[in-house]
Amino acid sequence: MIDKIIEVVRQCQRFLITSHVRLDGDALGSELAFYLVLKGLGKDVVVFNEDPTPENYLFLPGAAEITHHLEDPLLYEAAFLLDCSELERVGRESGRIAGIGKVINIDHHLSNDGCWEIKLLDPQASSTGELIWRIIKAMGISPTVEVATNLYTAILTDTGSFHYSNTTPEALKAAGELVAHGASPQWISQNVYENEPAEKMKLFGRVLDNLSLAEDGKVVMLTVRLRDIEEIGAKHYHTEGFVDAGRKMKGVLVSTLFTETDENVYKVSMRSKDDIDIEQVARVFGGGGHRNAAAFRIEGKIEAVQKRVLEVLKSQGVV
Amino acid sequence: MIDKIIEVVRQCQRFLITSHVRLDGDALGSELAFYLVLKGLGKDVVVFNEDPTPENYLFLPGAAEITHHLEDPLLYEAAFLLDCSELERVGRESGRIAGIGKVINIDHHLSNDGCWEIKLLDPQASSTGELIWRIIKAMGISPTVEVATNLYTAILTDTGSFHYSNTTPEALKAAGELVAHGASPQWISQNVYENEPAEKMKLFGRVLDNLSLAEDGKVVMLTVRLRDIEEIGAKHYHTEGFVDAGRKMKGVLVSTLFTETDENVYKVSMRSKDDIDIEQVARVFGGGGHRNAAAFRIEGKIEAVQKRVLEVLKSQGVV
Repeated sequence: MIDKIIEVVRQCQRFLITSHVRLDGDALGSELAFYLVLKGLGKDVVVFNEDPTPENYLFLPGAAEITHHLEDPLLYEAAFLLDCSELERVGRESGRIAGIGKVINIDHHLSNDGCWEIKLLDPQASSTGELIWRIIKAMGISPTVEVATNLYTAILTDTGSFHYSNTTPEALKAAGELVAHGASPQWISQNVYENEPAEKMKLFGRVLDNLSLAEDGKVVMLTVRLRDIEEIGAKHYHTEGFVDAGRKMKGVLVSTLFTETDENVYKVSMRSKDDIDIEQVARVFGGGGHRNAAAFRIEGKIEAVQKRVLEVLKSQGVV
Repeated sequence: MIDKIIEVVRQCQRFLITSHVRLDGDALGSELAFYLVLKGLGKDVVVFNEDPTPENYLFLPGAAEITHHLEDPLLYEAAFLLDCSELERVGRESGRIAGIGKVINIDHHLSNDGCWEIKLLDPQASSTGELIWRIIKAMGISPTVEVATNLYTAILTDTGSFHYSNTTPEALKAAGELVAHGASPQWISQNVYENEPAEKMKLFGRVLDNLSLAEDGKVVMLTVRLRDIEEIGAKHYHTEGFVDAGRKMKGVLVSTLFTETDENVYKVSMRSKDDIDIEQVARVFGGGGHRNAAAFRIEGKIEAVQKRVLEVLKSQGVV
């Protein structure tokens, strides 16, 4: 299938590259690496994302050239849909993008049903970045430092700094090759992970200080209160990732984060270890997600809300 | 030099393996990997460490067999001194270990002056684990899952999850090979990094919640008060690593952690970014360390102590 993709690159001149909303390092790194490679071949290329680039990824080479407004889709001969298992995840413009003559889907998500004619889907790959790297190598192109930087970022972030189970020998081999081509692990890590606003750190601190354990320490409950966000001067999006901290605690099987979005309205995010299925728990509350990461919304006073969630965790046999 | 080491392994039967006090993942992973390889060759091997194995490394294969009491050194024909640039860092038994006929030093520290007759020193290597891996490969030995697990842990921890500048192509290649031999990045990471006691997390939270910034956000000051440790029921050693969190903050050049060890007595730990030299600052207070990591002790009320440290940071031209 890589041959077909290379053929499209050879035949066409005008490309659109896009990915999912709620951008992450793999989406951005893959887009920008491929963008720079195509530009290097003298192609006309546009990277379109609905969402703005998160601040900690603005350092990525090429990030300043991403557009958030989609021109006439007929301008493009082919669209690359990266790291995206459903076209709807591109956002509002998904319908117009579907109208582009050729759509090429490159993705590593297990849930991708592969409905596109041209596709490179490999759930064994650590990241879409790893797949882009395969294509670049198959094209016989030696990557620039900028391309290597984008791809290293993709692999680094999607493997959680090489902590997750998708850290395969191939992922590490690819990462090593990218460093050999000039990607700087230290500089990249500093940009991605060491750029936290002080307000976020303070809010994180308050949340940890007020943590509570239940069910003999198997469940940790973290709570973000509206009044804390206001008092500290933090933003709602600063709570992203807080729930993962609960997983780092000894003995904890399920980490829950209760974020107050309006008075007495909570978004509940959950993370579980190993093969503990919490998606079923989220479904009881009308939410969803995956086996180890799920979320839902619930109204009520915090004590009652937490009590109810614990009840369901128990009745579903999770803890 | 690897040939000489392999020769010693062939010629001798009884080995001691040791490393530095204040054990870390590289010291332990290197010791235990080499221990298991030598045992596999039918040798008599003992791993001796003065310090007990930190709790989060007890999962390492072979960790239960480490001894903390040194038998008669004359029992051993050769001693492997791993990840250790000075014999003194082995602790109280360094003198007796020096008496062993052959001492083989394997290390990656820049400061190692290489005074041993048989040595494998490479400051370009990410870790001692990477050097042990080179030796094992040169011996033509296919590592067991247990050996691969120890070596992956060594490389993972000494590169700070592949974030530090010692994350070379070779380090990533070695890590990939070790995963191919059965090391599980997820299981290892969970054991090393996701085993934090709840008390430590609460204390960390309180420290973050009370952080203060100075010099336009270039300096962050974190404070651990005796009364917080007592109230939360945490231990003093739980503060290990807290100072690194300050480095993750945007705009921060120097992170300082003031840990109250006795009433109005503080241990001050400092971390700096890039080429900012804070060892000179520690020296003003009679302490020491390295360019990016230094520490000292100081007495006084917290406000006065912090004011004084800021003054020196400024007068030394650090911020």
